[in-house]
Amino acid sequence: MSTTADSLRLGQLHTAQLFGALEDPALNSMNFLNEISHRYPDAVSLAAGRPVEQFFETDALQRYLRRFCQYLEADLGYSEEEVRRTLFQYGRTKGVVHGLIAANLAQDEGISVDPEAIVVTVGCQEAMFLVLRALRTSPSDALLAVTPTYVGLTGAARLVEMPVLPVAAGSGGVDLDDLENQIRQARASGLRPRACYVMPDFANPSGVSMSLADRRRLLAIAAAEGILLLEDNPYGLFSHADEQRQPTLKALDEHRSVVYLGSFAKTAMPGVRVGYLVADQPVLDSVGGRSLLADQLSKIKSMLTVNTSPITQAIVGGKLLENDCSLLRANERERAVYTRNMRLMVDGLAQRFPDPERGVTYNVPVGGFFVVITVPFGVDDALLERSAAEYGVLWTSMHHFYEPGVEVNALRLSCSTVTPQQIEIGLDRMARLINDELRASQR
Amino acid sequence: MSTTADSLRLGQLHTAQLFGALEDPALNSMNFLNEISHRYPDAVSLAAGRPVEQFFETDALQRYLRRFCQYLEADLGYSEEEVRRTLFQYGRTKGVVHGLIAANLAQDEGISVDPEAIVVTVGCQEAMFLVLRALRTSPSDALLAVTPTYVGLTGAARLVEMPVLPVAAGSGGVDLDDLENQIRQARASGLRPRACYVMPDFANPSGVSMSLADRRRLLAIAAAEGILLLEDNPYGLFSHADEQRQPTLKALDEHRSVVYLGSFAKTAMPGVRVGYLVADQPVLDSVGGRSLLADQLSKIKSMLTVNTSPITQAIVGGKLLENDCSLLRANERERAVYTRNMRLMVDGLAQRFPDPERGVTYNVPVGGFFVVITVPFGVDDALLERSAAEYGVLWTSMHHFYEPGVEVNALRLSCSTVTPQQIEIGLDRMARLINDELRASQR
Repeated sequence: MSTTADSLRLGQLHTAQLFGALEDPALNSMNFLNEISHRYPDAVSLAAGRPVEQFFETDALQRYLRRFCQYLEADLGYSEEEVRRTLFQYGRTKGVVHGLIAANLAQDEGISVDPEAIVVTVGCQEAMFLVLRALRTSPSDALLAVTPTYVGLTGAARLVEMPVLPVAAGSGGVDLDDLENQIRQARASGLRPRACYVMPDFANPSGVSMSLADRRRLLAIAAAEGILLLEDNPYGLFSHADEQRQPTLKALDEHRSVVYLGSFAKTAMPGVRVGYLVADQPVLDSVGGRSLLADQLSKIKSMLTVNTSPITQAIVGGKLLENDCSLLRANERERAVYTRNMRLMVDGLAQRFPDPERGVTYNVPVGGFFVVITVPFGVDDALLERSAAEYGVLWTSMHHFYEPGVEVNALRLSCSTVTPQQIEIGLDRMARLINDELRASQR
Repeated sequence: MSTTADSLRLGQLHTAQLFGALEDPALNSMNFLNEISHRYPDAVSLAAGRPVEQFFETDALQRYLRRFCQYLEADLGYSEEEVRRTLFQYGRTKGVVHGLIAANLAQDEGISVDPEAIVVTVGCQEAMFLVLRALRTSPSDALLAVTPTYVGLTGAARLVEMPVLPVAAGSGGVDLDDLENQIRQARASGLRPRACYVMPDFANPSGVSMSLADRRRLLAIAAAEGILLLEDNPYGLFSHADEQRQPTLKALDEHRSVVYLGSFAKTAMPGVRVGYLVADQPVLDSVGGRSLLADQLSKIKSMLTVNTSPITQAIVGGKLLENDCSLLRANERERAVYTRNMRLMVDGLAQRFPDPERGVTYNVPVGGFFVVITVPFGVDDALLERSAAEYGVLWTSMHHFYEPGVEVNALRLSCSTVTPQQIEIGLDRMARLINDELRASQR
């Protein structure tokens, strides 16, 4: 048996010498899903949670950059030299589009926030890491997360070695009794629940949204129990109709219980890798100094990525400026596509699976990208591999969104990057797969 | 005394409830240095380690983007749709300019590397974090680092709670006897030294470069002891003359002992936030699978920042393509500025401090951005504050680059973002400050 030193003498490492989470399924599920779509490029993909591509224009990048530079000069009074410095040099750790983000939150979400409480991050993924790293002070700190949980959250928690305690979703998005119960149980077992991660609007992967009453009760529980709520809201803008939009938790937050996690991946473009967080909680230090939680998180950021590229921030800023800081306005065409596609998908499922008694059911979200199908047989990556190879259709197994070992007979379909024709073909193929599996499981 | 829950009921946190390193000087030194330069905007800054700004052109961004898109179409055979998808969508975790980076390393550094062993990162800072996160498997894993150490490395180590064991620099950049000694001592105290961080060329902050003989001996020690070398090389291109360039450790690496950390902050622009790492070490897993260390690090990256913005990668890629993948060629003008400025600075110091017997000495680097002045009195941030307010000159106290509590009578001057006139004025002010301090310390 070789030692560390021996291995390295051969220029070779073993995973046992590396961070244990590298063998954790949570860190591998993203890679697996990417890799299978590369292996089966001709399969219809109902797997990818990517935004629609048809409205991307390369020339828009230059237009957005120009628009942001004009804003720096005209609105903020920057000299040409200062504009160049802003784009090209190292910059403010908390970012340079915080004012525009605050304006956007006021306009689209009714959230009123001090721009100083905003940290612009390298995608929402970095925002999650920053918050978890700050909250994880010892092995007894734990995170609660509504299951099914976005894999990026689970992955970020692994990186800071913070346990994730599952909270049932129930039918309304979060089972609030179970939440209280999990907090109690965690404390009884010596853990310190610090926060609960939740995606109240058109959640990934479940598609479910919380009711207003549940939102208020969730906030009351958080305040009473002294835990933060990490509200992740990548899909909130994509309701099928305006009246289906609910106020965010942050808009209802009276006790600064909510850290709001924002993403421009779906509302601008993933390629900018720009997200942000709102952390307006005051923090007292041991010598009586006061700061915002955002300032503490920015210290972590300075040692992780220094600052978010001001060039990609400028692209986001330009897009915001072109649309009077409304992303609802900027995404009218995209929202129409998602609404149409989701209707086609749900109607297509109704035609192909008219009889719930056969055990194939699905939910009907009123926004977002995702529909979940529940089936009466096991669903795993082996089935996905077969689906790709023999049926030519890709989807996402729901087990990726649960703790390892949980068996989940469900799969997620995404309607965001497909044409109406691809939806029809994809659902035909899904129906063949599911019917074959139903027959096989009845034999 | 309030509990966690009580505090949060008031919407308030205390730093005692947050990650301990947030009160660590290592996480605050960057912020302090930025903050003081904002408070004294009229002071001459010999503090900032930023690249020269006079060659930045906003229009170049569009040109670089176009050039990279042409390359995707003409050289890689991408369709227009695939080009758009590459720029706008989520992308390959390890990056999209890996081929161009490999070509650059071959051309400028004589390093031959499989592009698959490259991970493109959000600046070199993220590269450091990825490597340390992978190597930190338990509290007994430790990092060695040549002191004075770049604060970004110390900060990244804090984020993964990995102790940093200082290794003396000696006169040659790394005291190799002390390195062996530190490894031995660490093992005797139950620690497992995993890697040694070193900046062999024109180091930040010391300006010192290692000799070829020391490089070879350092590699031999790493191979014999089974530790990795983390070679950080942001300044290697900026030698005053070609004959002063030394081969990197990675170019000399015969046993895959070196993880190479690259930055485009100084050779392209900080605003892209693009760096990279080369990790060509093979990794065996417990079921006999083989990968590269780069693949393991990319799993961590997928949960930290998902991928580096393909838009800023494209900007770097376009700049590389415009210069036949040579950053030496791309930086001819910049290098001439740094060479001239460093000569002015060193000559200016010689004029103002001709007599080393007074206890004021400085080194004469043959490249890079930094000169270190050693003085016979204490240097700390209080002195810097006074220097800014009363003398109008900024510099960097060397104590930031040592473990907390170490007293260091030295300061770092940077020559990279100043004009010849600013150097003269800055040095006049430095001389007044130093002479006043000398007189005060003799009283």
